[in-house]
Amino acid sequence: MTPDQYLSAESLEKEMALLMRLLEALNRRRNYPLERSHYLLLLQVQAEAKKINDLAAILALDATTVTRQVTAMQLNGLVTKESDPSDRRITWVTSTEKGRTLASEMREIRIHRINEMFKEWTPQDKDTFSKMLGRCNESLYNRLAEM
Amino acid sequence: MTPDQYLSAESLEKEMALLMRLLEALNRRRNYPLERSHYLLLLQVQAEAKKINDLAAILALDATTVTRQVTAMQLNGLVTKESDPSDRRITWVTSTEKGRTLASEMREIRIHRINEMFKEWTPQDKDTFSKMLGRCNESLYNRLAEM
Repeated sequence: MTPDQYLSAESLEKEMALLMRLLEALNRRRNYPLERSHYLLLLQVQAEAKKINDLAAILALDATTVTRQVTAMQLNGLVTKESDPSDRRITWVTSTEKGRTLASEMREIRIHRINEMFKEWTPQDKDTFSKMLGRCNESLYNRLAEM
Repeated sequence: MTPDQYLSAESLEKEMALLMRLLEALNRRRNYPLERSHYLLLLQVQAEAKKINDLAAILALDATTVTRQVTAMQLNGLVTKESDPSDRRITWVTSTEKGRTLASEMREIRIHRINEMFKEWTPQDKDTFSKMLGRCNESLYNRLAEM
């Protein structure tokens, strides 16, 4: 590692740890219509039904955790689940109308807040940041897949 | 909100929610020498003693939570605490040698992993991303202060 590489990694390390801390703090103080984990799951099943195993891969969770989440969400009327008629081991999850409504309310609130947060940024900077976050997320997916 | 503003906020919303999910997943699967909250606190008191109230502000936590954390960390031999001789309501927190050693080990591991994660990025992109994360963290601090 050259001194330059070390320096930039050092500052990335600090900023990423801080970002996570601040986002946690912000989420704790906000009243959202849904838990964040339920929201993320609902976003995935809004347009079409998905299999538990595919949801686990997308959300970087194990199938047991997703199954537990889906059961809790079903009790809250947010999703429905159905066994695959050709293979009972496969479970399909779909959003209910209530799930769709609450997810879209939550999304509107989040988008409004993000606009507030980034209001001093130029559209170009927002675009660059969003693309870099996307790249960073891709690397994180790869790291998780290697573990 | 113009359609363009909406679009960029939409993609920021998605990427930030995903980033948080992936970082959580990654942290859960890793064996670090310290809990992340203890690590973040230790980084603050490594160079000099700090007051509980100042730590709460920096870490975006309330004083009660920081006091609880400090007590747990003291039991683990990571920090020491001391009342201010001129005002007993003020508590100063300092890192022990053990705290400093473990924080520095954890930091090395994190920096190494971040270098791995960003190995495909140019030094310039890493620098831009790190600065943008810093700006984003500043906005988050401001939002938290307004709440």
